[in-house]
Amino acid sequence: MFDVAKIRADFPILAREVNGQPLTYLDNGASAQKPQVVIDAITQAYTSEYANVHRGLHFLSNLATDKYENVRQIVAKFLNAGHEDEIVFTSGTTEGINLVSYGWGAEHLGAGDEIVLSVLEHHANIVPWHFLRDRQGVVLKWVDCAPDGSLDPQAVIDAIGPKTKLVAITQMSNVTGTRVDVKTICHAAREKGVATLVDGSQGAVHGPVDVQDMGCDFYPITGHKLYGPSGSGAIYIRAERQAEMRPFLGGGDMIDTVTKDAVTYAKPPLKFEAGTPGIVQTIGMGVALDYLMQIGMENIAAYEASLAAYAAERLQNLNWLNVQGTAPGKGAIFSFTMEGAHPHDISTVLDKKGVAVRAGSHCAMPLMQHLGVTATCRASFAMYNTREEVDRLVGALELCREFFG
Amino acid sequence: MFDVAKIRADFPILAREVNGQPLTYLDNGASAQKPQVVIDAITQAYTSEYANVHRGLHFLSNLATDKYENVRQIVAKFLNAGHEDEIVFTSGTTEGINLVSYGWGAEHLGAGDEIVLSVLEHHANIVPWHFLRDRQGVVLKWVDCAPDGSLDPQAVIDAIGPKTKLVAITQMSNVTGTRVDVKTICHAAREKGVATLVDGSQGAVHGPVDVQDMGCDFYPITGHKLYGPSGSGAIYIRAERQAEMRPFLGGGDMIDTVTKDAVTYAKPPLKFEAGTPGIVQTIGMGVALDYLMQIGMENIAAYEASLAAYAAERLQNLNWLNVQGTAPGKGAIFSFTMEGAHPHDISTVLDKKGVAVRAGSHCAMPLMQHLGVTATCRASFAMYNTREEVDRLVGALELCREFFG
Repeated sequence: MFDVAKIRADFPILAREVNGQPLTYLDNGASAQKPQVVIDAITQAYTSEYANVHRGLHFLSNLATDKYENVRQIVAKFLNAGHEDEIVFTSGTTEGINLVSYGWGAEHLGAGDEIVLSVLEHHANIVPWHFLRDRQGVVLKWVDCAPDGSLDPQAVIDAIGPKTKLVAITQMSNVTGTRVDVKTICHAAREKGVATLVDGSQGAVHGPVDVQDMGCDFYPITGHKLYGPSGSGAIYIRAERQAEMRPFLGGGDMIDTVTKDAVTYAKPPLKFEAGTPGIVQTIGMGVALDYLMQIGMENIAAYEASLAAYAAERLQNLNWLNVQGTAPGKGAIFSFTMEGAHPHDISTVLDKKGVAVRAGSHCAMPLMQHLGVTATCRASFAMYNTREEVDRLVGALELCREFFG
Repeated sequence: MFDVAKIRADFPILAREVNGQPLTYLDNGASAQKPQVVIDAITQAYTSEYANVHRGLHFLSNLATDKYENVRQIVAKFLNAGHEDEIVFTSGTTEGINLVSYGWGAEHLGAGDEIVLSVLEHHANIVPWHFLRDRQGVVLKWVDCAPDGSLDPQAVIDAIGPKTKLVAITQMSNVTGTRVDVKTICHAAREKGVATLVDGSQGAVHGPVDVQDMGCDFYPITGHKLYGPSGSGAIYIRAERQAEMRPFLGGGDMIDTVTKDAVTYAKPPLKFEAGTPGIVQTIGMGVALDYLMQIGMENIAAYEASLAAYAAERLQNLNWLNVQGTAPGKGAIFSFTMEGAHPHDISTVLDKKGVAVRAGSHCAMPLMQHLGVTATCRASFAMYNTREEVDRLVGALELCREFFG
């Protein structure tokens, strides 16, 4: 049974007040809070189990290495990867996508080759491809979403042409909460021999992921959105694609031999992990994923769907509020604007009531341009949020309406 | 006054036992342990002050942003940079040097252009330059060290030719403890219009740093070696060099505007910091640097010099031990081999006595080749180590000698 009160009790920060009000943390799309088990794992690691990994032979180094390397199979299980060697640790999705851009794209894509993107993408899944456009003449082909924020998978598939080498697409919009049918897209792309990167930053947080069933080649995730430490992350890279990649970051651990004249590289995944990694934050990410799997991603998805439906209904009744995106099955992420009030001012007023939301372009300027707005407020929910918190958001918005209306 | 007992008490892990023996942690060159203030800062951040930085307008986001951005001036002070905007946050030295290789080197160096390196370099300061050799025909020019491990600054300066664009050199060898006169090298290079990168991974840990006096262009440091969290780091980049650089990682935060067709970038340092950064580990690094500055880097240097002299004397008396590197003024890092015993086996025996040392090539294979060894054992000291621990190391080595002799 999914017990939200029990889950909330696992997150110490949720008990705090902000501006004299109970904290209503609705900025989970930017980063999620951490359960006590994650905080405790970090403390334990630094207090009694810390050393550098891989290259030591002493007790603490072996202990830290075991704990660190064990996370690979935890991530593999979380994503249902075929093998833990298909998991590469990163500092987050941004580094993961740059790894693909520099390690695979820069090697395999030339002038005129195309990358298909949707207008829903986060800058992390745009700017690394702009680098390839700018530096080697790659062409970006964009697929727009429908007015309700939904993305037609067939439109993405239709955008694949003979020069297309990669489809890079989000699983869930961080602005509208739109879920994309990435499985249909990935399978069609693979039939055409086109690689696929699915940005799992948001999607992996809100429901079960099965990269084998999805059929993608690259699937990056971010630990800090998954209730894990900042600076943690991983990317699933299908073994066949790993074999096509050159290394990205150079340094210790990713080599086999180094001489004055040449370098040979370690086998993947180490080939893609240079230098001392984020040891303790990776260990913490493993604890967070174990925690999520204990709760059950299907249970989380079901709870959040109910919460999203409730929030959608309540927000819909505010006819002076303009909610961006109403695609069927969308996640619990709501971006909105209000006539006569700048999103930054709304955010500031909500904050006075303890309600934490984000305001701005949400690292998705092409989508903002497509929606015809410069900024929105965004309330993004997590598994620990409640209907009562939806009510608090609505109450605070009504106050905004009075204030600015 | 430098009170080593008081400092030791700040590091909880130093009180633990390993294999029934008191922990004698001499693997500080790989990573240092963390004082309680750093652990507490991490706990506090996650327990009551956590949110994503920069893009929020709510209380927790503002609080986290203030704490995070405050670290920039702490690092600037620690390195005596001219301005805090010359500090770019990284996940460590490896990412820092790759930032220079991809963001500056790939843009400005072409076929036949030269990079001058010393044989003392760590792989983190070798492999990113091999990438430029392999991918765009850059030539690596190597300067060897003397038999005692010392590096003649004039030999480095003499290696600078008309095609030299960069001198990339370590401040302190992680294998022999050799200190390099980087100031003389940097000033001579600058007179010739050649850029300089000084690898501060080890050097910054063991004495005061003044990047303006040193005259370097790039100076990367690693937080986890500086008693800070894993996955933290920074690089000093002189403002004039920042202006010559293209961005490295693409994503959120480092842009000014993104459209379907183009990107414009934020001003430095944000231009070089993509996506959600290592928020909490950067905050922790700031606490670690403040802690070090309170003790005083000159005090640390003086204490460690005395400890190094004691260790050198004791190890020198073991005439069956072959210590690599005896350069005058060397730091408290001792790499050694022993006839008839593999370094891995020595390390394992020492571990049984609670003495943690590293065995292997220490990510410095060109130096290993130059020294004519395939691997060494390395005991690397920190400010919290004591003469008693030197004695324990010597005692354990004598046991090894009996065991393998």
